[in-house]
Amino acid sequence: MRVVVPFAAADPKTRLESLLTSTERSRLARAMLADVVETVVETGHEVVIVSTTPLEKANLDLEGHVLESVTIEVDERSLSDAVNARLPAGDGREVDVRHGPNDAVGVVMADLALATTDALEGLFGADGDVVVAPGRGGGTNALVIRHPEFRVDYHGASYLDHCEAATAVGATLEAVDSFRLGTDVDEPEDLVEVLVHGSASNRTLTCLRRLGFELERSSGRVGVTRDEPSSVE
Amino acid sequence: MRVVVPFAAADPKTRLESLLTSTERSRLARAMLADVVETVVETGHEVVIVSTTPLEKANLDLEGHVLESVTIEVDERSLSDAVNARLPAGDGREVDVRHGPNDAVGVVMADLALATTDALEGLFGADGDVVVAPGRGGGTNALVIRHPEFRVDYHGASYLDHCEAATAVGATLEAVDSFRLGTDVDEPEDLVEVLVHGSASNRTLTCLRRLGFELERSSGRVGVTRDEPSSVE
Repeated sequence: MRVVVPFAAADPKTRLESLLTSTERSRLARAMLADVVETVVETGHEVVIVSTTPLEKANLDLEGHVLESVTIEVDERSLSDAVNARLPAGDGREVDVRHGPNDAVGVVMADLALATTDALEGLFGADGDVVVAPGRGGGTNALVIRHPEFRVDYHGASYLDHCEAATAVGATLEAVDSFRLGTDVDEPEDLVEVLVHGSASNRTLTCLRRLGFELERSSGRVGVTRDEPSSVE
Repeated sequence: MRVVVPFAAADPKTRLESLLTSTERSRLARAMLADVVETVVETGHEVVIVSTTPLEKANLDLEGHVLESVTIEVDERSLSDAVNARLPAGDGREVDVRHGPNDAVGVVMADLALATTDALEGLFGADGDVVVAPGRGGGTNALVIRHPEFRVDYHGASYLDHCEAATAVGATLEAVDSFRLGTDVDEPEDLVEVLVHGSASNRTLTCLRRLGFELERSSGRVGVTRDEPSSVE
């Protein structure tokens, strides 16, 4: 399966600007991208990073054997347009009504820093012409699309829109129940999830720790604290 | 398996007081309790509701065949103390080192309004002396405990504390990856999750709609709006 990982390279993660400079947000976004791409490749699938601006493979924190399964395409269009162009029969390609599993396309957001191979295998292996992993707040964090007429629309309550769009084209729909795929790292409180659930080898966790973030566990509720970063830039 | 569902009956859900009166919060809490209890019973397990104040079965919005699998116990102690008293070898009962599956105890929070039988079967069926379903922000939303020396402590970052406590007593640990079990309804933004993911038969969703809540989908982000409630009290 081809798995599209859209990546907004310019000024990413603006909802974290109360905590992080633009440079720091870029570092964090790239750490998350590398975590996501490596995990997808570990499930045996090909990754197409669709970046809004040019991106060098050499600048990705990934080993050579992982990069062999990765291509980078630049697409300045909106998220939805860029994804739709890469779906089965996207960009005006002829619809093949005999579409099979080889025509399936996965779409995994680049900020699912806690995605594991188990969670992604649950997504990729689920039945359904359209398989969707919801995010918090009505978002869509990951999809598998096997139906030639389905198109994405990430604006607003996209999870419900995608469910309705699947029904509208007669596609069978399956929702995947995953805390890890449901956790996209957008808001300050999402950093807590990385600090709690990130594995020792998680680049995103390492990045946050280098930037000085730690879990605050002494009070009744859990938060993050930030000390002087141990490395700046 | 006995499944303990702790229920704070007096002045519940105070973090929703910006949106709901005390009476409304009680209604919502009871709707969630009924959803959770019915779903657990549908998985074939016995439920022990451990309530901080007396609670009548007749006042639960549950059908007779469900209530047959439900008992209510009143316990004024703290959440952790009340749960620990009901674990294998709790309250000073002798530790049976030959403890088997019959001694397993489940603990499911009463505000997991989106729990489904699939999600709960994933929890109850997971291997591990201790099985834990994390909530957002480092919380613990559900547990299965098969080890006689494990004790809960819900204060603070309880998910990490429970992982460490399992390791400390030599128990094997399994984490369950579930968006639905990860969603406890505590904060205003959690209401969005019920409005997005609640099924047609979900009491919590029905309760919120009767209180006038609807999804706000017109803007870029998803929120809730509240009209005049269609029924007050």
